[in-house]
Amino acid sequence: MPRHYTITLSCPDRPGIIAAVSSFIAAHGGSIGESASHTETQSRHFFMRVEILAQTLPFGLEELRARFVKLADEFNMQWQIADSAVKKRVVILVSKQEHCLSDLLYRWRSREFEFDIPCVISNHDDTRSIVEWHEIPYIHVPIVPENKLAAHQEILRLCERHQADAIVLARYMQVLPDFFCVAYPSRVINIHHGLLPAFVGARPYHQAFERGVKQIGATCHYVTQELDAGPIIEQDVIRVDHTETVEDLIRLGKDVEKTVLSRGVRYHVEDRVLVHGSRTMVFR
Amino acid sequence: MPRHYTITLSCPDRPGIIAAVSSFIAAHGGSIGESASHTETQSRHFFMRVEILAQTLPFGLEELRARFVKLADEFNMQWQIADSAVKKRVVILVSKQEHCLSDLLYRWRSREFEFDIPCVISNHDDTRSIVEWHEIPYIHVPIVPENKLAAHQEILRLCERHQADAIVLARYMQVLPDFFCVAYPSRVINIHHGLLPAFVGARPYHQAFERGVKQIGATCHYVTQELDAGPIIEQDVIRVDHTETVEDLIRLGKDVEKTVLSRGVRYHVEDRVLVHGSRTMVFR
Amino acid sequence: MPRHYTITLSCPDRPGIIAAVSSFIAAHGGSIGESASHTETQSRHFFMRVEILAQTLPFGLEELRARFVKLADEFNMQWQIADSAVKKRVVILVSKQEHCLSDLLYRWRSREFEFDIPCVISNHDDTRSIVEWHEIPYIHVPIVPENKLAAHQEILRLCERHQADAIVLARYMQVLPDFFCVAYPSRVINIHHGLLPAFVGARPYHQAFERGVKQIGATCHYVTQELDAGPIIEQDVIRVDHTETVEDLIRLGKDVEKTVLSRGVRYHVEDRVLVHGSRTMVFR
Amino acid sequence: MPRHYTITLSCPDRPGIIAAVSSFIAAHGGSIGESASHTETQSRHFFMRVEILAQTLPFGLEELRARFVKLADEFNMQWQIADSAVKKRVVILVSKQEHCLSDLLYRWRSREFEFDIPCVISNHDDTRSIVEWHEIPYIHVPIVPENKLAAHQEILRLCERHQADAIVLARYMQVLPDFFCVAYPSRVINIHHGLLPAFVGARPYHQAFERGVKQIGATCHYVTQELDAGPIIEQDVIRVDHTETVEDLIRLGKDVEKTVLSRGVRYHVEDRVLVHGSRTMVFR
Repeated sequence: MPRHYTITLSCPDRPGIIAAVSSFIAAHGGSIGESASHTETQSRHFFMRVEILAQTLPFGLEELRARFVKLADEFNMQWQIADSAVKKRVVILVSKQEHCLSDLLYRWRSREFEFDIPCVISNHDDTRSIVEWHEIPYIHVPIVPENKLAAHQEILRLCERHQADAIVLARYMQVLPDFFCVAYPSRVINIHHGLLPAFVGARPYHQAFERGVKQIGATCHYVTQELDAGPIIEQDVIRVDHTETVEDLIRLGKDVEKTVLSRGVRYHVEDRVLVHGSRTMVFR
Repeated sequence: MPRHYTITLSCPDRPGIIAAVSSFIAAHGGSIGESASHTETQSRHFFMRVEILAQTLPFGLEELRARFVKLADEFNMQWQIADSAVKKRVVILVSKQEHCLSDLLYRWRSREFEFDIPCVISNHDDTRSIVEWHEIPYIHVPIVPENKLAAHQEILRLCERHQADAIVLARYMQVLPDFFCVAYPSRVINIHHGLLPAFVGARPYHQAFERGVKQIGATCHYVTQELDAGPIIEQDVIRVDHTETVEDLIRLGKDVEKTVLSRGVRYHVEDRVLVHGSRTMVFR
Repeated sequence: MPRHYTITLSCPDRPGIIAAVSSFIAAHGGSIGESASHTETQSRHFFMRVEILAQTLPFGLEELRARFVKLADEFNMQWQIADSAVKKRVVILVSKQEHCLSDLLYRWRSREFEFDIPCVISNHDDTRSIVEWHEIPYIHVPIVPENKLAAHQEILRLCERHQADAIVLARYMQVLPDFFCVAYPSRVINIHHGLLPAFVGARPYHQAFERGVKQIGATCHYVTQELDAGPIIEQDVIRVDHTETVEDLIRLGKDVEKTVLSRGVRYHVEDRVLVHGSRTMVFR
Repeated sequence: MPRHYTITLSCPDRPGIIAAVSSFIAAHGGSIGESASHTETQSRHFFMRVEILAQTLPFGLEELRARFVKLADEFNMQWQIADSAVKKRVVILVSKQEHCLSDLLYRWRSREFEFDIPCVISNHDDTRSIVEWHEIPYIHVPIVPENKLAAHQEILRLCERHQADAIVLARYMQVLPDFFCVAYPSRVINIHHGLLPAFVGARPYHQAFERGVKQIGATCHYVTQELDAGPIIEQDVIRVDHTETVEDLIRLGKDVEKTVLSRGVRYHVEDRVLVHGSRTMVFR
């Protein structure tokens, strides 16, 4: 895909926003690729995402930003512009279970994902071998009850040193401390192995089995200070019935988890997700 | 489909149950149609459902029951035998919303459902016309806060007078009092417009919208004294995204609700549902 | 929903189309509701759908059309503008099976559908009663092998006399003659009881059973002169396995058919479907 | 899971089969785990699968087979008995695309799969590294138009030398010659990247795009001499719309392909699939 700039913005709704943005782009000869917008009818808030082919503009990213800021101020926009030529840096956190990590790594090495993985960090050493086979640095930060805060301060430093744009919790089984969530708002992506808001917390498949549900699922969401309550990016389900044991649910659930997580990561890295309170707009 | 007897049973698991039941049937020349069994590995409890072609037995239902009771006692079974020639009687309770009622009535008049509907009871008069067009008696029992108990005692009397085998709450918006749940255990079937255990209680689509979920669903379950907590018979979902308003969720949800309810009712009436604690076995 | 005009357009892609359309609307003070666009990357063809709140414009529909035509000519657009205050007129054709008809009628009487049904036409008399209960005229046009052409000329005359904007084949089991397809291009909507392009033609569920598929489905599509080959508007599926007989497939399939047809009809009537060769863009 | 014997059988339907089989097991003190049966109503053919806990029998596999043969002869059964303690040997054939291979290997190394992989054979050398990292022998058999038959004779010899119980085509892009299909009837498992019988042959996603379908899918099936026409083991779908390019379909399809293939392989290896003409019974 040719180089493109992706503008994402949100602002209070009023007539003329699409006209202003698209006229701004057209005035500079810019060619629009994908374009999508949405207005939340209850809150009267407007959201837009538009891709511009870089080669059709007579100037570069900095100039684009400099010129766009006037328009943005006029409409009171929250906005950002991403450049597809600048690869995002995604740090992966993992514990012992490997299915999500393995799936992310496959997509990365097959170039389905276009981002960089500067390192994988884990509180266990189990997945070192497969990570290092990909020639990605593997950093083991052991965690025991006594060092939880210190360990996560160390992990935060590692993320900062590796200039992480996003942090993916690929079945990372520790609760992130508040200072971590605050440091990367709407940039820490978790996969929960239950269809939130059902089955918050530990052992969701055991909860699902006890309750006798006929659909199980997984939820990809941004991490906030409240456990399993952050804005949902993606969810999917699979049908089950009484014949499945808890072990079957865990096995079947893994397939949903890894697919849902990789979709969510993709949407995030491609700047397709806009957050508004507890909800996300995902311009697929 | 030719006349058949359906045996459903459950008992503590031990070797030889299938052999005993199938040999009992074979010994009398009985021909088996569908047959299914399941053992809950945690509780070591066994469940079985078997259909016998009536014409292949040399005796009738009463004799079959009389002979089966010895076998049932030996294995400590809870059991029942249904006769497909005896149509079940299903009373429908409804409030103002008509989509589930309308769907049930269509399936009934097109003979997709093989049961009788002795009457439809409602706390409103809105759906009288379509019910009476089907030549089904419509009984209006108005409910106000002051007469809730008395009204439900009247409804219970009506169900008893019409010899209801099952009671279907087709978007009946009143909470049934405890004495009603106790009178018809595992025989009152509700449709909840949320994917339980998420979104218990009122306005589940509004809750789902606020939470920003990407899958909405509906749940068909038996009514117990605890609100929306009875054993789940059937669930299904539909994908939604940020473009759907609450009104869209309500509209899309109706299609899931009516399909899930009609499947659950069908399973129940065909004696496909066995309840064990908070879980159901559904032999489809 | 307040009165709105819906512009749908397509034209060869080039920079500035969105800017031109949205600036045109903004220049007259128009407020945009939903807006969506799409470019087919292979054919470089552009598609757009935009809703304008009628009350925000200083003129009416005729003036809007008169002013828009200059813009449309400049970009070589195929376009139309619909007014939500003018209800579309949808004629339904049906044979003996009632599930799709019944579902459409329910949605119509519950005001989920916002269109008029001037009449229902059938080659059988079986569904007269339920149609007339809705106070919709029912026209019986018997068809035998000898009068097929003449009968369809009569049906075409009836559609014209009732000023049909769209014609819905709700399990109408006759093949429409070519002159009929030509008279209403992209306006005759059929439901096929198979997941096209699999199982073209007669008895798709029997074909599906013989082939042992694990997913069955239904397809809502525009009717063209080539049987079951018109542009697909909507499809959905349901999982089946070896336990389902052909009769089960037919029964389960009905639920998919009626849901898929009603979605397709809704998309069409709300001007959400743009046709481009053998493909549709559906702006949901 | 404790060691168990799995009996699978099929025979003309008649009364007493379940009784005979389950009584045979009970007579020797055998404890039944999962048990399932099915009768095809059209062909009057009966199918059964039953698991026996090995430790509850007073004799071993050979004696079980020797005793069962009398019963099998009486009912004219086709049958086999598998021993969970004897791991099946699954040879994987692959070309350049790695997503299915990678997924199979992950499930194998995480012990989700309980079989052995004696070797991976490919007509390309691209996937050698990941296979050898798993310490599985990788055999490169180059194929050019001139040596197609000879190369497949070599591959067949390799399968025989490695005592393959099953052969999995994990996006193997060569058509197997007839002698190969004949050598391993109902034991060569393919994944087709289309929802058969739609989109037989090459480039199914391009076909799907051109046709404008709204659901794409993948099919796991046994290979027979007729291309893409063998009995279907498993299928699944994913919803798409006009916004997806052919490249998007290919990317999204990979997730369905790998999930459907791994399910099919699992069912086969656990002796859950019985073939009857063009149909499979899958006792999940």
